[in-house]
Amino acid sequence: MYSRSNWEDTIVALATPAGVGAIGVLRLSGGAAISICDTVFRGKKLTEQISHTIHFGRLVAQDGAVIDEVLVSLFRAPRSYTGEDVVEISCHGSPYILRKAIEMFIAAGARLAQAGEFTLRAFLNGKMALSQAEAVADLIAAENETAHHTALQQLRGGFVLQIAALREQLVHFASLVELELDFAEEDVDFANRQELAALVQNGRQQIRVLLDSFRLGNVVKQGVVTVIAGRPNAGKSTLLNTLLNENRAIVSPIAGTTRDTIEESLVIHGIQFRLIDTAGIREAADQIEAIGIEKTWEKVRQSAVLLYVFDAAAIEAVDLRKDLDILQTQEGRNLVVLANKVDLLTEKQLSPAIKMALGDIDCIPISAHQSKDIDTLKEHLYQLVVGDKVLKDATMVTNARHYESLLRTEVALEAVSGGLEQRISGELLALDIRQALFFLGEISGEISSDDLLANIFSKFCIGK
Amino acid sequence: MYSRSNWEDTIVALATPAGVGAIGVLRLSGGAAISICDTVFRGKKLTEQISHTIHFGRLVAQDGAVIDEVLVSLFRAPRSYTGEDVVEISCHGSPYILRKAIEMFIAAGARLAQAGEFTLRAFLNGKMALSQAEAVADLIAAENETAHHTALQQLRGGFVLQIAALREQLVHFASLVELELDFAEEDVDFANRQELAALVQNGRQQIRVLLDSFRLGNVVKQGVVTVIAGRPNAGKSTLLNTLLNENRAIVSPIAGTTRDTIEESLVIHGIQFRLIDTAGIREAADQIEAIGIEKTWEKVRQSAVLLYVFDAAAIEAVDLRKDLDILQTQEGRNLVVLANKVDLLTEKQLSPAIKMALGDIDCIPISAHQSKDIDTLKEHLYQLVVGDKVLKDATMVTNARHYESLLRTEVALEAVSGGLEQRISGELLALDIRQALFFLGEISGEISSDDLLANIFSKFCIGK
Repeated sequence: MYSRSNWEDTIVALATPAGVGAIGVLRLSGGAAISICDTVFRGKKLTEQISHTIHFGRLVAQDGAVIDEVLVSLFRAPRSYTGEDVVEISCHGSPYILRKAIEMFIAAGARLAQAGEFTLRAFLNGKMALSQAEAVADLIAAENETAHHTALQQLRGGFVLQIAALREQLVHFASLVELELDFAEEDVDFANRQELAALVQNGRQQIRVLLDSFRLGNVVKQGVVTVIAGRPNAGKSTLLNTLLNENRAIVSPIAGTTRDTIEESLVIHGIQFRLIDTAGIREAADQIEAIGIEKTWEKVRQSAVLLYVFDAAAIEAVDLRKDLDILQTQEGRNLVVLANKVDLLTEKQLSPAIKMALGDIDCIPISAHQSKDIDTLKEHLYQLVVGDKVLKDATMVTNARHYESLLRTEVALEAVSGGLEQRISGELLALDIRQALFFLGEISGEISSDDLLANIFSKFCIGK
Repeated sequence: MYSRSNWEDTIVALATPAGVGAIGVLRLSGGAAISICDTVFRGKKLTEQISHTIHFGRLVAQDGAVIDEVLVSLFRAPRSYTGEDVVEISCHGSPYILRKAIEMFIAAGARLAQAGEFTLRAFLNGKMALSQAEAVADLIAAENETAHHTALQQLRGGFVLQIAALREQLVHFASLVELELDFAEEDVDFANRQELAALVQNGRQQIRVLLDSFRLGNVVKQGVVTVIAGRPNAGKSTLLNTLLNENRAIVSPIAGTTRDTIEESLVIHGIQFRLIDTAGIREAADQIEAIGIEKTWEKVRQSAVLLYVFDAAAIEAVDLRKDLDILQTQEGRNLVVLANKVDLLTEKQLSPAIKMALGDIDCIPISAHQSKDIDTLKEHLYQLVVGDKVLKDATMVTNARHYESLLRTEVALEAVSGGLEQRISGELLALDIRQALFFLGEISGEISSDDLLANIFSKFCIGK
């Protein structure tokens, strides 16, 4: 499907979102893009026009029927997105016209592009590294400032340059070590073992920093799954509404109001938190509520941050300890305990009541209803995830595939380090270095299989 | 809102449909379009580039943050859609990026375009007649071949040339008649009354043809509301499915299966029929069915074509006559009686059974279940609506506003005709001619009020 053999024909697809709009843009790419367009375009002869120019004319079907009045933009290879000849046709934004036009181009010799095929061609034609191609999809999907910034940074190279430099030095050493093998009888060392050890040391350091950035990078890209849990009537839905600043969830004084989990997105300083409001934890009153409570536990297990809310004005100490005992055993997730409804208590009542209930466990006193200390909570959530890391210009690994390749590179480099210490043979050393080079090459795409490409580009939209 | 006074500033809007896509296009139009774009674009200096060229660069926010890598297309006045300087920016199709970019252009001095404002400017700058501007919206909304063809024809001029020629001749006569008034004491006739009478006669003929085309034109644009009605279990939903060639409606042998009305679109030779399947007519078994049956009668009243289906294999003559008596009194709609399930009868049984039930009323025998004679039915529906009229190159009035202006022109010209016969004074004659000119001018937009423009363009989408 994504083999390199069928990317010499000319492809066509709708590049703009489906639906009715002022304009819709079709895109053709391939050796015959301009000549195919010429067969249905009435205006200037496109094959005679220079790159980066725009031409007005009509699309005319074989039976002479005019389909639309359009603007055609020409991009000649290699100065185009794909590196091939590209034509973009700006039509009136009518689904009927766009469908008709695509049919005409197919009749004239183009074929419908597969998902991501334009970007795949850009990669295959050397217009971008594989990790940059992947950033195109991330950029389009980015929903907030930090995710957008990170994707754009990666599109413009990101850590690819760093990887490329390391790779080049390793290639150099690998060649020298392999050269020694040719002179094995003479027992010469072309490759300075100390320099190689230093290089590997330095490379592992760089890779560890990148690996460390993945947790945060993933958070930036996917958002932080943040579950709001607690007993019925603790004010969970009110907290959700207050955090979002809108009436998203139905709130009522009746315990068990929320049944379905409600998911909404909150952005704090550019980091996205996926807030999930849940049904209150208790013995369910009916079947539907029981399903809701089961869902609550499921969400708790999936959470990265868990906001446990309790009613500070009506503390049920036994329930509270029971819940916290269970929740504290949930490994790997950050538990934040919130004492809600503090507006119903005086300052004097507040501390002893909470102290008695929680013992040594920290909590943040808030009033969801009166929006009290909600900013403190937001700041706490941000600190929890980002800490003192600098987001703005940090290089972050956001892609699980890159993370995995880096992890494998690190293992291979560790073997090289160990081998150098144990003074293993050049032959074995060369093998380990080649292994590291292989995994590094996977990131930028120097090493890629058709399966890998299919896996990456099939997730793109058609027309990209 | 749509006054001519505020269209000198520069406007910006998203021109492609909202949503995620490979690319999204923003459009700026106005005197400062290019210079505003220059303030946020890093690449070549746009103010120094020629028209109809494309330039690669980056959009950079005031704080230095890169928003996207983009392609900018330049169109210099008057060689643009609006007749003003126009810049189109092709971004990555991310809603986040497009929103950010619009914010940047607004910060740089553009304002958000109102609905249809680009096309309004094209009209005000003399790039197109008002009726052509209206055709832009029709073209985008066109869902089938004939509607598309008619809209495109109107976009490219349509009957505007015809109207313009008539208008010019009338203006000539009006001037001559008015000239006579200046020489009133000398009793001269500059305007040849016979020639004027012939012109008015000819003009009225043309306008009547256009008025006649409206019924069909409206059908082409809106589709024909075609209701399928009948007793329970007559096979109405099966007929709908067979006509559509898909399993759209749930069918079962249980009477009263259909409750909600189901609407689907069927195109026959380029004419769109809006098929509506209804609940069977009977005493309802329950509350929900009763609502369904009430809806059936409502739809019957709205229909242009009514397909009455009955079960030919189980004719209830009394019910049938009762239904047909009611339906035949529904004025203005075309009743088509369908004898369904004829596959359950032999040829010999068929004719007498139907004859006995219907008497002189014509019907089409079909089998919805076996797709028998469905093509005959489709052909019949098409003939009913289009008859022997030639659709392909006919000039059709599809717009209610144009229809109304033509109707008023016809009244005014009738007055001119009458006046000529009665040899009324030149003064009164000139008044009637001016009246006709006024209404003709409304169509192409020589005469237009701000209210009229607001009414037309507010129905456009933003960005068009």
